[in-house]
Formats: sequence, structure tokens, C-alpha cells
Amino acid sequence: MKNIIIASTSTLHGGDYLEYLLPELSIHFKNCKTVLFIPYARPSGITHDEYTAKAAAAFSTIAIKIKGIHEFQDPIKAIEQAEGIFTGGGSTFVLVTELYKNNIMTVLGQAVKNGTPYLGTSAGSVICGLSMQNTNDMPIVYPPSFQTTGLIPFNINAHYLDPDLNSKHMGETRATRIKEFHAYNSIPVLGLREGSWLDVKGSKVVLKGDLQAILFKQKQIAETIEVNTDLSDLK
Amino acid sequence: MKNIIIASTSTLHGGDYLEYLLPELSIHFKNCKTVLFIPYARPSGITHDEYTAKAAAAFSTIAIKIKGIHEFQDPIKAIEQAEGIFTGGGSTFVLVTELYKNNIMTVLGQAVKNGTPYLGTSAGSVICGLSMQNTNDMPIVYPPSFQTTGLIPFNINAHYLDPDLNSKHMGETRATRIKEFHAYNSIPVLGLREGSWLDVKGSKVVLKGDLQAILFKQKQIAETIEVNTDLSDLK
Repeated sequence: MKNIIIASTSTLHGGDYLEYLLPELSIHFKNCKTVLFIPYARPSGITHDEYTAKAAAAFSTIAIKIKGIHEFQDPIKAIEQAEGIFTGGGSTFVLVTELYKNNIMTVLGQAVKNGTPYLGTSAGSVICGLSMQNTNDMPIVYPPSFQTTGLIPFNINAHYLDPDLNSKHMGETRATRIKEFHAYNSIPVLGLREGSWLDVKGSKVVLKGDLQAILFKQKQIAETIEVNTDLSDLK
Repeated sequence: MKNIIIASTSTLHGGDYLEYLLPELSIHFKNCKTVLFIPYARPSGITHDEYTAKAAAAFSTIAIKIKGIHEFQDPIKAIEQAEGIFTGGGSTFVLVTELYKNNIMTVLGQAVKNGTPYLGTSAGSVICGLSMQNTNDMPIVYPPSFQTTGLIPFNINAHYLDPDLNSKHMGETRATRIKEFHAYNSIPVLGLREGSWLDVKGSKVVLKGDLQAILFKQKQIAETIEVNTDLSDLK
């Protein structure tokens, strides 16, 4: 049975890394002594070791060990044998490229479908969708495909931001870019604000956190989704 | 001799489409009765016809006709025979995909190198760089490559925005994303604010408009570029 937390962000303003999620995580990973960390997204270009140390520091406060996937000879086996998996944020383009390069995009999806508890934040959440096409990141490397694990049958826009009505900036808003996406694609897109997450248990998908989310569907007006809404039928 | 205007945006806050650039454009395209418009980027998903009509309305005020490249049977010939070329903004991913699909990425670069006056705004400016890797757009379609025309030997970040120091949003800033780019690439990136443009005459590249630009180079601190700075040696 799937058991997934898909979080918009790792860090809230004024808070420490993962701090707001720790009470959830100590339940989510309660049967894990060690969680496998996928540091591929390398935020700000930090190394796999540096990123893994950051994750380890946060998880140590709930008495869980972290081991980086780059420390294993065989990343496929590392995923198949993991008690729990956490993929951190950073560049979605780099993350997806590395997952394909190491032949673990499908393996990861399969392990999580089979019940390995999974946490994604930001880029690590985007890869839970059908494709990475609603990332906010720059295309800094060229991935072999934009397809991701499809653990949920829709896409995630992480760090969702409402249009700033006072701004004089004329660059496109998230909503405009998602509208452009829907000129070519029919996949629904859920805009998850920072502090929101999806709780996935089996086929049940529920919005958690304090904030509403915004749901974009092709040829439809965007819809506000209240906290605790059951999104199991969304596809 | 190259003769190019590379503009951050088409439209300033409170202004009409291309309005702020029209005095420049009437000089830039002074030998053109008709300018070829490349509407492939389809902002907000509007059609090629709708987008071409919008460009035509703006250019009619300086007595220049616009013809959309989609109206030609042979887009290669359309570019080779154009008196002037304008590529509008929208989705850089869609634009680059269409340029490759129609086999005109190289043809376009060659025509402009040979002296056909060119105007790019937003996505139409990003393709003047070595690659589209510093676009702000979502990867809504999968292009065969991120390489672009290389009319200038660096990359453009259009609609450049400074980090908002009052924001409580923790999503990555432009500067962070460009830093991540430089973890994998050595190409300099010029952040062009809305209202700025590069004037390219032969091998001379000069920053125009009222605002400073920001120059990002690998392993260096970002640099402020003053108006009228000669960027001809930047690469």
C-alpha cells in the first residue's frame, strides 16, 4: 500500500530544515531505523555529501538515520532494500536526469507503489506526478525525458505562489504558465503552497497543512481546494 | 553585419504591446516594408493567427507590415527571404521545439548573422543565446535540444527580477537557479530587467534602456552592468 508525503517545500520562512514536518515524519517513518536519502537535486549546487549531512541533521532529531544513495555501489539495490526513502528538493532537471542515468526512475516508483514509505519535498514531490512539466526550475541540464514516477495521476506545482496583484512585473505568473501547459496537455496540476502536503495512503490522497491548494484543469477555471479535501478521484 | 535588438520584454507595466520600443524599432527596421513574425511561443496558448494580429497592430503604428511564418508553405524560404524578423515571447520550450520541428533554428541564426535585422522579446531573446537553459518558463513540451542560435556568446535571463527581501516565500530565486546552472555550465548569464535590451551591431553588444542589468559568471560574484556598457567581450 502506498504511503507517501508529498510536500511543497522542506522549509518554512523562519523555520529550520524540515522542522514543520518532523511530527508527521516521526509517524510516517516510525518503522524505519534508516531512511535512504536521494540528494541528486543538489540545491544551490551543494554536493551529495553536504546535502545528505543536512538531511541527516534534521532526521537525527527524530532518531532516524539517513544514508545517501550515492554512498551505495548499486543504487537499484539501495532503493529495493530501503526501509524508507526521502528525495530532497533542488533542481528538478538535475534530479530527473540523475534518476534516469542511474536507471532508478521506474525502480523508485515501483518500490513506493509496493509500500516503502516515501517523503518528497519540492523537486522530490514533483517526481511523484506524471511528469516534471510543472516545475519552476530552470532547464540547467537536459533530461532524457520529462516523465516521472506517476505515483499520483496528476502533476504538482511546488512552492505555488499566487499572482502578486501589486507587482509591476509583466513576466508570466504561475497560473499563466500552467494555462500554457494546458494548451498542450490534459494532466491536472495541483498548486501546493509552502506548508501544504499531500498525504497518500493506498489510493487515498488528502490535502494537509494549514493552507488551501489551487487545482488547475484543462479548459476549466482554477479551483480552490480546502485542507483535508479527499483528492483520490483526481486524474 | 549582425543587427539585433534583444529585449527582456515586449510590454512594460501600464504600456501597450511593444510601445516603449517603437521609436527604436522604426529605426531598426527602417529598410523593411514587411517583417516576418515568428509566433511559435504562443503566450497563454493563443493561436499563431491571434498572436500575429497582435504584432501587426503594434507594427502598423510605424507603418510596417507583419506576416506570420505560419502563413508560408516553406518556413526556411520565409526566413531566407525576410527583410526583417521578429520573434515574440511566450513559452521558450514551445518556441524552441517548433524551430527545431520546422528545421529553422540554424537557418534563423544564419540569416541574422548575415544581416537580416532581428528583434527578439522574452523567449525570442532567449534564443539569441547559446542555450535556452536560463528561461523562466515551465517545460510544457519536450524540445529535441536546449541549444539555441548562439547569436551572442552568452545566455539571457529575460524578465530578470531581484530577490524580494520582504518575501516569506522560500522557493528559489532567479539568482539561486542561475547559481545551480553554473554548477554544471560555464556560460555567462545576463539578467535583463524589463525595459532593458541589448543592441547588437556586428560584434558590438551594448546594454540599452533605463535599468542596470545583472551579470552572472561561473564561480564569480554577480556584477551590476550599467546602461551603455559595451558587452562585446563577454563570453
